[in-house]
Amino acid sequence: MTPDTFEIAGRSYQSRLLIGTGKYKDFEETRAAIEMSGAEIVTVAIRRTNIGQDANEPNLLDFISPDKYTILPNTAGCYTAVDAVRTCKLARELLDGHDLVKLEVLGDQKTLYPEMRETLLAAEELVNDGFKVMVYTNDDPIAAKKFEEMGCVAVMPLGSLIGSGLGILNPHNIRIILEEAKVPIIVDAGVGTASDAALAMELGCEGVLMNSAVAHAKNPVLMASAMKKAIEAGREAFLAGRMEKKAYASASSPLGGLSR
Amino acid sequence: MTPDTFEIAGRSYQSRLLIGTGKYKDFEETRAAIEMSGAEIVTVAIRRTNIGQDANEPNLLDFISPDKYTILPNTAGCYTAVDAVRTCKLARELLDGHDLVKLEVLGDQKTLYPEMRETLLAAEELVNDGFKVMVYTNDDPIAAKKFEEMGCVAVMPLGSLIGSGLGILNPHNIRIILEEAKVPIIVDAGVGTASDAALAMELGCEGVLMNSAVAHAKNPVLMASAMKKAIEAGREAFLAGRMEKKAYASASSPLGGLSR
Amino acid sequence: MTPDTFEIAGRSYQSRLLIGTGKYKDFEETRAAIEMSGAEIVTVAIRRTNIGQDANEPNLLDFISPDKYTILPNTAGCYTAVDAVRTCKLARELLDGHDLVKLEVLGDQKTLYPEMRETLLAAEELVNDGFKVMVYTNDDPIAAKKFEEMGCVAVMPLGSLIGSGLGILNPHNIRIILEEAKVPIIVDAGVGTASDAALAMELGCEGVLMNSAVAHAKNPVLMASAMKKAIEAGREAFLAGRMEKKAYASASSPLGGLSR
Amino acid sequence: MTPDTFEIAGRSYQSRLLIGTGKYKDFEETRAAIEMSGAEIVTVAIRRTNIGQDANEPNLLDFISPDKYTILPNTAGCYTAVDAVRTCKLARELLDGHDLVKLEVLGDQKTLYPEMRETLLAAEELVNDGFKVMVYTNDDPIAAKKFEEMGCVAVMPLGSLIGSGLGILNPHNIRIILEEAKVPIIVDAGVGTASDAALAMELGCEGVLMNSAVAHAKNPVLMASAMKKAIEAGREAFLAGRMEKKAYASASSPLGGLSR
Repeated sequence: MTPDTFEIAGRSYQSRLLIGTGKYKDFEETRAAIEMSGAEIVTVAIRRTNIGQDANEPNLLDFISPDKYTILPNTAGCYTAVDAVRTCKLARELLDGHDLVKLEVLGDQKTLYPEMRETLLAAEELVNDGFKVMVYTNDDPIAAKKFEEMGCVAVMPLGSLIGSGLGILNPHNIRIILEEAKVPIIVDAGVGTASDAALAMELGCEGVLMNSAVAHAKNPVLMASAMKKAIEAGREAFLAGRMEKKAYASASSPLGGLSR
Repeated sequence: MTPDTFEIAGRSYQSRLLIGTGKYKDFEETRAAIEMSGAEIVTVAIRRTNIGQDANEPNLLDFISPDKYTILPNTAGCYTAVDAVRTCKLARELLDGHDLVKLEVLGDQKTLYPEMRETLLAAEELVNDGFKVMVYTNDDPIAAKKFEEMGCVAVMPLGSLIGSGLGILNPHNIRIILEEAKVPIIVDAGVGTASDAALAMELGCEGVLMNSAVAHAKNPVLMASAMKKAIEAGREAFLAGRMEKKAYASASSPLGGLSR
Repeated sequence: MTPDTFEIAGRSYQSRLLIGTGKYKDFEETRAAIEMSGAEIVTVAIRRTNIGQDANEPNLLDFISPDKYTILPNTAGCYTAVDAVRTCKLARELLDGHDLVKLEVLGDQKTLYPEMRETLLAAEELVNDGFKVMVYTNDDPIAAKKFEEMGCVAVMPLGSLIGSGLGILNPHNIRIILEEAKVPIIVDAGVGTASDAALAMELGCEGVLMNSAVAHAKNPVLMASAMKKAIEAGREAFLAGRMEKKAYASASSPLGGLSR
Repeated sequence: MTPDTFEIAGRSYQSRLLIGTGKYKDFEETRAAIEMSGAEIVTVAIRRTNIGQDANEPNLLDFISPDKYTILPNTAGCYTAVDAVRTCKLARELLDGHDLVKLEVLGDQKTLYPEMRETLLAAEELVNDGFKVMVYTNDDPIAAKKFEEMGCVAVMPLGSLIGSGLGILNPHNIRIILEEAKVPIIVDAGVGTASDAALAMELGCEGVLMNSAVAHAKNPVLMASAMKKAIEAGREAFLAGRMEKKAYASASSPLGGLSR
């Protein structure tokens, strides 16, 4: 069996769990949870996390080493394209020319729902400036296609609102996005527990990005282990090809015999 | 960390995935899938599977060794208490006094829904006759309590109909059963894919029994691996304590701010 | 168009909303809500409601006249077959030989889930004693068939627990009950709002019985009106034959083109 | 009780069911279904329906009179802002200066999902040109707010894809839109049967627009009646204030006592 890897921006990964670094008690807990998760791609909110901006504070990169992990700077906290682009450029500087970024432009502080018009503008500008853009988006199939066409390296639709833990509220939209996608589709935001992550993978997504589900569990390290297994489980179930759903075992055709 | 085991009839197990032996292409595929699943308890339909009744046919126990697995004879295909009790006695004979059984008494061939009155009668008689009874049941919390009180060693409510793959259609009933249970609750029937199994464990069940979900996957061995991981993931997520669900991240209380 | 009526125990009804009389502020509110609901069958908990047992207290029948409504005595508060049968006999006496009853035998005070073994016993005894039995049951298709075969005049599966307002948690079981039923199937318990009631009718049920959903609404009389319309809406939608579900409008077959 | 009306563009309506005119067998069936629905606002696809463009063909307005109904021209079939704006101007001409329009700009022919960037552009241009714009949109709360702020007179989020009949796939987003809305929110697209329509109203929407659910029912006229009642039912249930959901009746607080 050839290993089941996936590619982002020309680099191959085995772990399909992408993980955030916010909301932990301290950098030590961040490190322990991320190590347990098996993640290879770790996302960092440039505007909130010290990765060298302040030489007098603890530096996340001393706990999560760029030698071991692909650091994925993100624009959390940005509400306009201008801010997001500026933040990506700052990240590129801090990380010595690193050009893989996760773009998010949010609509308001209450819901943290993406601001799609600004996200489209920022994505276009960043791609044109040479960035490899992974883009956080709502679950709009038309927008997903646009991001792909403009050259984003991954499209990351929400399952539900950031920090809500409500899971994938509209799997139908994710399926429609997947039907046409030629770049990796990664569910980003909303996953609350292991079965949510497994479901995302069973739909056929290439990966899942999460933060609160691990950081806000009572035991983040154990939840990181749960998520690692859930994502592998969901991926394998997708590859294995699930049994058909039937109204009952003796039904001759799937869900046959029922009127609705 | 002490290992997270559970007990049935005084014996301790690490794997919380119980697995059936029916519906595979041949005994070799059965063996490969079960080995991959990591299951320690393997259930066998006494009326359908040769475990020595016919000396001229292949014997399942040559593929699934009782030295390695706990063999759990079941009464699949029985529609009355009388038949089910007789089948358990036959199993005890064939297996040299082995008294752990999975009781199922079905209501009809179309739905394979349990016949509860006959199941209650059979369970009582088997317990009185010294059997250790794991009992397949609908998701009735009152019946679950009765089975526990009469001395069954595990109560096994359905998620949905046998062979349907529809998942856990009424998690609410499973939760209510779990609230009061003092014996292991194991979801039996209905699981279709990995996220279904993870969900059962997240509810707090002690284990999941499945057959079709693995045997009827396009790739049964890979699905067995998926299920192993899904059950571990769901169990760890349960133990880790999931984050609270919120309408949105900035809501001060769980699901606050929404009218319904 | 011939009027769309249904029959219970040989009598024809136009309203498919059956309604309870408990939990209102006072008999006046009970009367107003029931009048608004358009219900023709009104159920009364014989052990809790004064319909003449106590000559010094207000009598419900002075507000809900047996001349106008079919009074349906029920056995709410009974936890054994013996109690339920005794209560039905008391009702028959109080109501001058009236033999239509709603049987419910509950399993415990916490969940109010039906005690199925006792319900089966009581139903049999009541039918043999000449009662016309409408029977409250869990959503077990095998038990539903048994009640029909023993001569019950209607089978009344729960949508969810009495007083929960959680709606129909397992429509799949209701569908399976409906597939084989030859007597009216009436959802009893669990309906919380108008769409729940409409859904029950869309599944093909003959009617819905409710109490808390109306009595515990902030405005019971307005909710009674809502429920009347919802049940008519659901019934008409069932008769009209809904459009097929599709993944998208251009899909050539229902839900075609999607992988899961 | 004052009548429960709602306002669009300064005019008051009693019926909260808005209805389309496409997909019927003929104009006679269109007329019969719409009359039965009680709708006061009737939407017409200007690019597909003859309302006078072709003097030699039957004219819809001879069946659905502008004297009786508010005619709502829509831009179905438009895939760019330019096309949509042009279509609205054509409608205004054909209808003698009528300036109420329903804007829809679609992303592709396969899914009929809205093209949000073009929709935003068109809405802005139309508002500036004096149109009263009711705008079809995805269920994006940020976009909904934008449409309101630019002066649209109603925001019309989808329940699910046009012509799918899948109902409201993400009620959570509709709730979030409703929390902040100051203009009428009307679910447009996706409703498949009566309970879907009731649910939209229970969420607090001001109305529902539908077409296929009626036109593609086996009996469109009867389904129109069902929908009329369902929408009234859902509205009244919303106003009446539904009972709280509880895990069981004896729970002291809503959904108390359950672990998840």
